[in-house]
Amino acid sequence: MTKVARLMEIEGPQALKIFEEEIPTPGPGEVLIKNHTMGLNRAEHMFMNNVYLATPPVPARVGVESAGVIEAVGEGVTDFKVGQEVCVTPNLEMDKYGVIGEHCVVPASAVMNKPENLSWEEASSVWMAYPTAYGGLVFSGGLKQGAGQVVLISAASSSVGQPAIQIAKSFGATVIATSRTLEKAGPFKDAGADHVIATSEEDWPQKVLEITGGKGFDIAFDPIAGAFTNQLGEAAAEDATIVTYGVLSMEEHNPLPIFPMLLKRVKMTGFHLIFHMWHLPERWEEVKAHIIPKLEDGTYKPLIAKTFSLDEVADAYAFMEGGTQQGKIIIKA
Amino acid sequence: MTKVARLMEIEGPQALKIFEEEIPTPGPGEVLIKNHTMGLNRAEHMFMNNVYLATPPVPARVGVESAGVIEAVGEGVTDFKVGQEVCVTPNLEMDKYGVIGEHCVVPASAVMNKPENLSWEEASSVWMAYPTAYGGLVFSGGLKQGAGQVVLISAASSSVGQPAIQIAKSFGATVIATSRTLEKAGPFKDAGADHVIATSEEDWPQKVLEITGGKGFDIAFDPIAGAFTNQLGEAAAEDATIVTYGVLSMEEHNPLPIFPMLLKRVKMTGFHLIFHMWHLPERWEEVKAHIIPKLEDGTYKPLIAKTFSLDEVADAYAFMEGGTQQGKIIIKA
Repeated sequence: MTKVARLMEIEGPQALKIFEEEIPTPGPGEVLIKNHTMGLNRAEHMFMNNVYLATPPVPARVGVESAGVIEAVGEGVTDFKVGQEVCVTPNLEMDKYGVIGEHCVVPASAVMNKPENLSWEEASSVWMAYPTAYGGLVFSGGLKQGAGQVVLISAASSSVGQPAIQIAKSFGATVIATSRTLEKAGPFKDAGADHVIATSEEDWPQKVLEITGGKGFDIAFDPIAGAFTNQLGEAAAEDATIVTYGVLSMEEHNPLPIFPMLLKRVKMTGFHLIFHMWHLPERWEEVKAHIIPKLEDGTYKPLIAKTFSLDEVADAYAFMEGGTQQGKIIIKA
Repeated sequence: MTKVARLMEIEGPQALKIFEEEIPTPGPGEVLIKNHTMGLNRAEHMFMNNVYLATPPVPARVGVESAGVIEAVGEGVTDFKVGQEVCVTPNLEMDKYGVIGEHCVVPASAVMNKPENLSWEEASSVWMAYPTAYGGLVFSGGLKQGAGQVVLISAASSSVGQPAIQIAKSFGATVIATSRTLEKAGPFKDAGADHVIATSEEDWPQKVLEITGGKGFDIAFDPIAGAFTNQLGEAAAEDATIVTYGVLSMEEHNPLPIFPMLLKRVKMTGFHLIFHMWHLPERWEEVKAHIIPKLEDGTYKPLIAKTFSLDEVADAYAFMEGGTQQGKIIIKA
């Protein structure tokens, strides 16, 4: 038997319950993994509230990111062997698979070797956050090695914020991290941010212009949208790119910053892991080639916010909703 | 003496009056031109309503595009001679210069030779519309020769619409022209549009998908904005670019099409003649090198909507406001 979390009603994570079930059998192309740790993401939080791309087939398994050991392989799986230490990446259809529990069955295509030297917690903290940060900054934002760009990372205390700071710094950028308050400034500085701005405490677009000698940022990597986009427009340099990768503001209107687009040649792009990376396999190869060596040599270091037990899974998502965490929230199997 | 139009109050073009004045003298770097024709533009219409980039210094001269003959040159002007046939391009500060009248004084930097074989009407119809269309499609939209792109041109009956159709066709694109009704379809077909869609008469994004076998357009060149941008998002192909060059809709909200940006990698850019071309001189050289030979050999042919006399200038702008014109509205001196 194995303990798994299931969403009983489409009412958000408070509708998660833990059950004892038979250990599942992997089908063709699938593997069975005994999880050590699982990383939580806002994507499945949205899924559980039915505001994501698919509807949960309740009682539904949930979660897209874990690390553990292969316990069985299905028909046709040749890349993985029983006993191998692996990560489950979020390259999963949420209405077909869910990882949160002591075991999970997932497609072999969503599985990869666990990078060396990472703890189990770290190994389940990487494959949503780092590829999103890399893809948003490099593929959508046009971040280039040694180009001396100014990169603004908003909502920098999110689980993607820290990796984004680390990646932008490794490309030689000047990094401005923003957060509502300065309470969370410590970890941004640790991750290498050159400047930290509290958006609720000062005229922050003005501050960005001051920091950059009136020029503004070259790339913004933003999960907030809403009216915040207009403020980004004010703080943008000529020819800047604003990469929107979420709508945390949940405002009724997401404005197009039309005057910055006309007067400063500002460009608006998006980034979503599925549609800007998994659908373009050569990008995934580039991401792995960049990220894995830097994880293994410690250049990139995932930040863990807090670890919960499997029985506390609903509390763990409530903690995410509270928004006080810095870094990744982990469940231990 | 010379007849000139002046805006007496900041109340839009109905506040234009005609005066007899002394012929002005060009200052250093300026030239005096005896106008044959003037082309009208929405930009100075907005200026006269104080919704553009500068405020009219009433009683203000207005207008940014004309064609005529050099009558005098100011100190330091070596590129132009008395008697030369020229065009005035909109590379003008609207609160310092205005062309509408029998004579105008403008900076020599805004003046260029009249292309051969163009009528006076045509010569004053080119330098707002063709550079805007070329710049929006090529610099902002990424139109490439022979790439087989699908280009959507909205509000195609505007003075920029016809040039945009001609330019996209000369690059080998498939062109979809849209307009509110099909009354105006004839000139679009003449200009080379492959498909014409009436946006008020059918589910037009669906029609774009049908025409393109479900794929959508690669580049949209749009002066409408507002809710129309969301419909553009529906009709966009993966990796499409939407180029916004105006806000004709004048709606309260200009939405960011965030789901097409996330799910289809749609990009949003802008185009404005001043900030995307005059400020980048190498682009202006590219535009001239492309456009002038094609005007001279008849490949590109400006469409004239209607010609008015100088005394009818307020009526001419009212005609523009009515929105029934196809092509350029001209004033004859």
